[in-house]
Order: sequence, then C-alpha cells, then structure tokens
Amino acid sequence: MPKIVDHNLRKKQIAEASWRVILEQGMEGATVRNIAKEAGLSLGALRHYFSTQDELLEFAMKLVMERATDRIEKIAVKELPPKDMILKILMQLVPTNPETLAEMEVWFTFISYARHKQVNMDLPHDRIYQGMTKLIRSMDQLKLLRKDLNIDLEIERLYALVDGVAIHALMEKERMNQERIYELFVYHLNSIWVEEQ
Amino acid sequence: MPKIVDHNLRKKQIAEASWRVILEQGMEGATVRNIAKEAGLSLGALRHYFSTQDELLEFAMKLVMERATDRIEKIAVKELPPKDMILKILMQLVPTNPETLAEMEVWFTFISYARHKQVNMDLPHDRIYQGMTKLIRSMDQLKLLRKDLNIDLEIERLYALVDGVAIHALMEKERMNQERIYELFVYHLNSIWVEEQ
Repeated sequence: MPKIVDHNLRKKQIAEASWRVILEQGMEGATVRNIAKEAGLSLGALRHYFSTQDELLEFAMKLVMERATDRIEKIAVKELPPKDMILKILMQLVPTNPETLAEMEVWFTFISYARHKQVNMDLPHDRIYQGMTKLIRSMDQLKLLRKDLNIDLEIERLYALVDGVAIHALMEKERMNQERIYELFVYHLNSIWVEEQ
Repeated sequence: MPKIVDHNLRKKQIAEASWRVILEQGMEGATVRNIAKEAGLSLGALRHYFSTQDELLEFAMKLVMERATDRIEKIAVKELPPKDMILKILMQLVPTNPETLAEMEVWFTFISYARHKQVNMDLPHDRIYQGMTKLIRSMDQLKLLRKDLNIDLEIERLYALVDGVAIHALMEKERMNQERIYELFVYHLNSIWVEEQ
C-alpha cells in the first residue's frame, strides 16, 4: 500500500517543517500558513493532512517523542553489558548534538506555549518518569543497586536529574556539553551501583 | 527621599502587573498596553517608569530573582543547625506554594520567549549554579560531606536536581508537592552527608 506510506512520510515532512518554523520564529510563527510555506505546500494541500493547527502541532510533538523512543529501542536490542546500556539510554534523554538540541528546543518552546493556550493535547508528559521507573527497577532486578537505597526515591531522583541536565544542556550548551553530562551520569550511577557484579 | 521610594514601589507594582498578564495570557499578551491596563495606569504614565517593553520585562524578571534571594537571605541570618538551614534554602529554590508557583511559571514562560526573540537581557541565568557552589562548599568546610565525594560533580548534581525538581513541581503539581520534594531533598542530602557530626 504505497499510498499510505507516502501519506505518513508526507505528514512527517510537514511535522519537520513545523519544527524548523518553531526553531526560527518561536510558537508565534508556527501558523498553518507559515508551516505550509516552509514545507513547500499550498494551504489546501496541508489541510489535506492536518485539518487544524492543533492537530498538526500535536503530531509534530509526538514525533519528537517517537524519535527519542526509537533511538532508545535501537540501543535496548544491542548486546551490551547492563551498565553500559543504562548509560547509553540516559544519554539519549538529554540533548547532546545539534539534532537532539533542536528537538529539545522545540519541545521546550511548545510546552511553555501549550500551558498558556490551555491546549488540551494528549501528550505523554510523564513518559520519562515511566522510563526511569523501568530503568531503576531493571537495575534492582539485575542486583546492580546497593541494598540501602529507597527505590521509589531513586526513581524520583534520576527523573529530576535527567530533566535538570536536559534543561542545562539547552541553556548552558558550552559548560554542559556531552563529556560533562556523561561524567555526571557515570558519577551518579556509581553512587547507587554495587561496586562489582 | 519619599519620591524615590514611591518611584521604586510603583515600578514593583508595574512588574507585578506584568506577571499577572503573563500568567493569564502568556508572553503574547505581555504588551506595554495590556500591562498598563492591568496596573491601572495610562500608557504615558507607564512610559514614565519604563521606556520600552524589554526594559519593563527585564525589571519584572529580575524582581522574581530578587524575591527568591530575599527569602533565602532571611533564612541565612537565622540561628539554625547547618543541615536544617541547607534544607530550608533548597526548599526556597523550587515552587511549593501558589506564590512561588506563579513566579516559576512567569520565569519559565519568559525564558522560553526570550530564546526566540533573541532578547539580550542581563539576566542572571546561572545564579542558582553559583548558589549550589556556595552551598556544597560550605557543607565541605563544615565537614558535613562524606570524604569520597567529588565536590565539583556534587555541585553539578545538586544543580540539576534542583532545576529538575522545579520543572516537575510546575508540570506535575499533584505528584511533586511540597512533602514529596522535601522527602527527596532529605534523601539526597543524607546520601552525601556524614552520618553524625
């Protein structure tokens, strides 16, 4: 069914055009008209894929999450020692290169906008919280964690750490670069992991 | 010099009016006209205090920082055991009540806006990083910290933790309430503090 594939591909291209508009002009510029222009489509053609601006923006934001999820799934299927895998997964949750910095910037801009517009979109706000829950529970099952930890609070702590690092990576790019972030995650994990397996 | 006091008081009242406008309408609504209306002033009267919108917004954002700094300074002069004081200071850096939630919301909205407008304001982005540096170094000098810590990375970790918690307190108010935040800070500090003084 090549028709459907093309349809989905076109929707992704439109979503990516909306990211570029948001990055350049902020949410104020993210009108259906501007996005159509950026995507090289007529307004009518764009409306064929998304009938409202909210529908388009919701799709564009879900695509940001989907790309991060895809990167993580690619790591999860690899044959890696558990500690290496956990570190690699954490590094996918924070912006460390131009592509992921742009994704984070779009996400941050959108979240701030959506709060004031009272846009009621079905966005997975707590996806990272669920991810951290899974990660800490896996470490616990693999007996990687020290015995004296409070699992519930370790989830909360890792969740706050990851989002704090993500914000700092965006706001203070030079200081909070990939090396520094990696160093911090290794340090944190070493503080909760048992010394040797 | 009552004239000067009145002038400063009026500027604060205008800044607070701009917060209310931002909270209700987002940055798109934060025009000089709307802020003047909210403050109950004519446009000409407002221009007497702030000649441009950027000047007004810069003042309003600095006032958010100033209020947090004032709250912390009030704690710092109290006669408190060091560990209690440190916990109380950390609790001032995250939104835990309607007043500080509103401050955080205004700050968050503004930061996101300023990034796209390329507004070049003299805002103390890294004030909290400096504060965390001071806090961790004080703990070290007071011999409160475990011997095996990396001080530099403990500053970075506390900084990320505080900002991550602040974002979650804003986004997930119900789960990340005052009790939960306090519990997490106590847990984190207990993991780096020596058992007994």
